[in-house]
Amino acid sequence: MSGQVEFLRGEFQLIDWVRQRSASYPQVPVGIGDDAALLSPTSGEEVIVTTDMLMDGRHFIVGQTPPELIGRKSLAVNLSDIAAMGGRPIAAFISWALPRHQGRDLAESLFTGMAGLAREFDVSIAGGDTNSWDGPLVINVTVVGETIGQRRILRSGAQPGDVIFVTGPLGGSLAGRHLTFTPRISEAIDLVQRVRLNAMLDLSDGVASDLRHILNQSRVGATLDARSIPIHTDVDRHLPHREQLRKALTDGEDFELLFTVSGSDAEQLLANPPPGWKPIQIGNIDGELGCRIRTEKGIEPLPTGGWEHPLD
Amino acid sequence: MSGQVEFLRGEFQLIDWVRQRSASYPQVPVGIGDDAALLSPTSGEEVIVTTDMLMDGRHFIVGQTPPELIGRKSLAVNLSDIAAMGGRPIAAFISWALPRHQGRDLAESLFTGMAGLAREFDVSIAGGDTNSWDGPLVINVTVVGETIGQRRILRSGAQPGDVIFVTGPLGGSLAGRHLTFTPRISEAIDLVQRVRLNAMLDLSDGVASDLRHILNQSRVGATLDARSIPIHTDVDRHLPHREQLRKALTDGEDFELLFTVSGSDAEQLLANPPPGWKPIQIGNIDGELGCRIRTEKGIEPLPTGGWEHPLD
Repeated sequence: MSGQVEFLRGEFQLIDWVRQRSASYPQVPVGIGDDAALLSPTSGEEVIVTTDMLMDGRHFIVGQTPPELIGRKSLAVNLSDIAAMGGRPIAAFISWALPRHQGRDLAESLFTGMAGLAREFDVSIAGGDTNSWDGPLVINVTVVGETIGQRRILRSGAQPGDVIFVTGPLGGSLAGRHLTFTPRISEAIDLVQRVRLNAMLDLSDGVASDLRHILNQSRVGATLDARSIPIHTDVDRHLPHREQLRKALTDGEDFELLFTVSGSDAEQLLANPPPGWKPIQIGNIDGELGCRIRTEKGIEPLPTGGWEHPLD
Repeated sequence: MSGQVEFLRGEFQLIDWVRQRSASYPQVPVGIGDDAALLSPTSGEEVIVTTDMLMDGRHFIVGQTPPELIGRKSLAVNLSDIAAMGGRPIAAFISWALPRHQGRDLAESLFTGMAGLAREFDVSIAGGDTNSWDGPLVINVTVVGETIGQRRILRSGAQPGDVIFVTGPLGGSLAGRHLTFTPRISEAIDLVQRVRLNAMLDLSDGVASDLRHILNQSRVGATLDARSIPIHTDVDRHLPHREQLRKALTDGEDFELLFTVSGSDAEQLLANPPPGWKPIQIGNIDGELGCRIRTEKGIEPLPTGGWEHPLD
């Protein structure tokens, strides 16, 4: 690196290309082009930060998945985390390690997918880090957002007696929906404006796994109602019903929100749902630790069956 | 991924290990363990965001560089960018793709290096994303900070007549200093409190290359004074003086700050330097575009000689 006098313009040109295609927003007075970006969050709100890294061969396969959808997903999973905090996104920061010999074309397609989703949610692409190498594609996206006036919405606030809801049907996402899902930003804002959310998260590993984060951090238990679990049409209807249910609870990558509210807020939400969508009640928080499910056979422990990335 | 019922606990365990070793700070009410982190920046300040990705084989070589120093550097380069905006850091977010069969040991050493530096600057390690894979080590760090009361300090504010300073000697960093440098956070705060900084950046590619960002964005030119360029003791003193100078201007990875202030602010800064260090005057901004250097032979164009990562 030292003393090299060549002009290797590739990265600067790509950064210019990206900058020209990045919309500007008043909350991001300084975006791409300085040492760092400057954001102006709304006074009095807290700043939300989340980051996700996606790798070729692990989260997608270059050559099998259209790069626009890879780019889109790398932003979408972060927007989903902002939604899970009941906030709205402001700016995204894209770092990528691009395979050297397809870097520019791949980068443009990835960026096109990101930029389309960013525009839908008024998110500024405000910075990042562009590298090329001989390894596989790696994309890291950080999204910075802000809260919208409610008290903090964490995983630790669920109370016995709360009703558990999800924002949409579950299961079968890996058939394709995991690449094209809509992050539930507007649904989160609808909820924050209507009720007091005691706990919320976005479903990445499946209800059976993710709900446990709320139960553990809130020191409560839950009983789900099998008949109420909304099974997505992406789940094969030819499977036995119990297998469909298992898939809805464990497939993961749903990116729907799961949240808990008091009984009275639940009644209000069901009586006056937000315009255009309706939360789906799937069970209750109770004081007895552990996670159970009520089926036609009675109440039984809920198999976790979520997946976690190995690290050995 | 779908329907996998195994419990592969590695990543969750590592995240717990990291969380237990992360100091807590009042400006980060929610760190690791929820869908996203919550920060409380000082009211009225702007939020600074920067991100850098470092890759094995590109920015370091696992097996040759101690992993503690790799971890330290991955945070240090981001802190340097926060300094370049005249701000102070609040929180860091670490994403990593860890080589599968050395993941845990490597991760602990990397984290130890980061955490030490984070503590020095009261930075909360407030989130991230942990992955393992069959590829080489990739680390992405995002740092969020805040401004400290001055107007924005950008690359675009240099004025003809400004004096150009750097915070320390230059060149030879790749002999080792690039892994151990101290990000100039406290020097930046010293400056913001004393003078009006018209333009500032941190030196990653060398003065000859980086100064051009200020010149281009400010639409000004500069003349450096060869006798004033501070040559670091890491530069081989047996080289001809002109070669030493070239290395000081083009080696890169100095991570000193380069800044410009008005003539009167320059006088004040030299007469009453901050405690413990003294800015080094290296030249002047002038209205004639381009970058020149004054040597014993007269004024000549400054060779750029900076380096940029290829992307082909």
